[in-house]
Amino acid sequence: MKIIANIAKMQEFSRQVRLGGLSVGFVPTMGYLHDGHLELVRRARTECDVVVASIFVNPTQFNNPADFDKYPRNDQRDAELLLSERTDVLFKPHADDVYVGDASTTVAVSGLTDSLCGPGRPGHFEGVATVVTALFNMVGADKAFFGEKDFQQLQVIRRMVRDLHVPVEIVGVPTRRESDGLAMSSRNARLTEGQRKLAPVIYRALNAAVDAYIEGEDEAVAVVDAARAELSSVEELEVEYLELVDARTMKPAETADENSVLAVAALLGDVRLIDNILFARALAPDAAFDACEAHAVPDVIEYGSH
Amino acid sequence: MKIIANIAKMQEFSRQVRLGGLSVGFVPTMGYLHDGHLELVRRARTECDVVVASIFVNPTQFNNPADFDKYPRNDQRDAELLLSERTDVLFKPHADDVYVGDASTTVAVSGLTDSLCGPGRPGHFEGVATVVTALFNMVGADKAFFGEKDFQQLQVIRRMVRDLHVPVEIVGVPTRRESDGLAMSSRNARLTEGQRKLAPVIYRALNAAVDAYIEGEDEAVAVVDAARAELSSVEELEVEYLELVDARTMKPAETADENSVLAVAALLGDVRLIDNILFARALAPDAAFDACEAHAVPDVIEYGSH
Repeated sequence: MKIIANIAKMQEFSRQVRLGGLSVGFVPTMGYLHDGHLELVRRARTECDVVVASIFVNPTQFNNPADFDKYPRNDQRDAELLLSERTDVLFKPHADDVYVGDASTTVAVSGLTDSLCGPGRPGHFEGVATVVTALFNMVGADKAFFGEKDFQQLQVIRRMVRDLHVPVEIVGVPTRRESDGLAMSSRNARLTEGQRKLAPVIYRALNAAVDAYIEGEDEAVAVVDAARAELSSVEELEVEYLELVDARTMKPAETADENSVLAVAALLGDVRLIDNILFARALAPDAAFDACEAHAVPDVIEYGSH
Repeated sequence: MKIIANIAKMQEFSRQVRLGGLSVGFVPTMGYLHDGHLELVRRARTECDVVVASIFVNPTQFNNPADFDKYPRNDQRDAELLLSERTDVLFKPHADDVYVGDASTTVAVSGLTDSLCGPGRPGHFEGVATVVTALFNMVGADKAFFGEKDFQQLQVIRRMVRDLHVPVEIVGVPTRRESDGLAMSSRNARLTEGQRKLAPVIYRALNAAVDAYIEGEDEAVAVVDAARAELSSVEELEVEYLELVDARTMKPAETADENSVLAVAALLGDVRLIDNILFARALAPDAAFDACEAHAVPDVIEYGSH
């Protein structure tokens, strides 16, 4: 495995790989890897010839500086895990190179970011969209792999890629869970033993909502209430939001259907956990789920003799 | 010459060209071509193997819809001119493909856009930065060529490319002028015969400022006044701004030096004309002028045996 810190060298590496007719799969991460990340690497390994994983704890997407400082890091273990999954390149750019001195360019995706994590984390998705645009330009990947756990982020990135015509295919990968259902997250490491035992209530609540839907309930309020009842069984849990939205627009849904996603953010102590459930996937676990549109396809015309 | 309208086909064309080891030079335009545009094509022809010119009148960069409607178009003549300069591809994407239905992603460059054309044209540079980011993703060029006439735009694009690490080299090309000094522009076609005769006062004014500087004046106010005196000789001319700024920051300069650029926007009737003079280039016409910074260069590390 190569560890590349230099951005120009990363670009040149990918250029050479692609000149050789091979494809590049890219897994962007903020490090402190868990099996959810490694699942992305395994998927990239299956679909692409060369796998690049990046570790960059992006300061601009933390609206809360304390959250940035507390974000867990373990460089040595991360490198070993990536090596064990046959990652070809670990790309670790320096923050000073990613954000040069007077950097002043931002990429913003409106609409999709008005709900869920958007209002509570001002600047977060702008930070994400900007750094992912930059990382795509650095890595030059054919496909990039993101977890569905951060579903709003995934949809923001899909929209950004579509709108800016970034020549990369975005692959969303289902959330990896512990055996008790807790979504894997770097932040789980910060839970106390007691909090860790309570945390699976989140996934139980999401499933309670889907169960209500399957049993015939399609009023959003009632579906959400089924989840809320489950969450309220753990009084240590402070719910930030619990919302049923349309996966394509991230706007609140009045009626549940197969485009619905129920998303939750909650605090256990000072650890902020998020999770979600895609109704389409809950109903048909093996179906691909994308929620993006195709482009029209006109022609090439020959003009003159040149 | 190929005329390509389809975005995916454009991307595939460039991919094939670069797989073949050839370089792609890109000249983005809004059409109604004049010799200033063709100078960009000639420069691209010199520096790159394959030349792609685009014509796309970008609706989002017109803060004034009437200006968009009035923007002159001549598709047939444009194609012939590009063919005569041995352009390989004319890329003409459809607006509906560039901006898909609910497109909501914008690229913004702050700081550089607070002065000159920024305040008077809200949203203009955001429209430019967004569409140029998208066009770069569509065309996949090695180098892209822009005229220095739109100097603030050129600096915005350089900053955006640097900040988002777009793998393209931006080449600024000196302004082409008519024999009487008027900067070539698609908008010149809308001047009446009488206005056309008055318009060269703009370039005379810019030169008057540089002359004052060469003669030892370095107070920005005095340098600008030398230009203003010349402009005031034509009372039909309505000056929107006349400002001495630092080319690297686009912020007002108090003292003139080799990083200064004097920029002007003025109305003749309802035709808005802009022009500028780079002091560095006026003092040393053959010197390259970029005003961008280099990146630091760390290492590649081999880790493990994979």
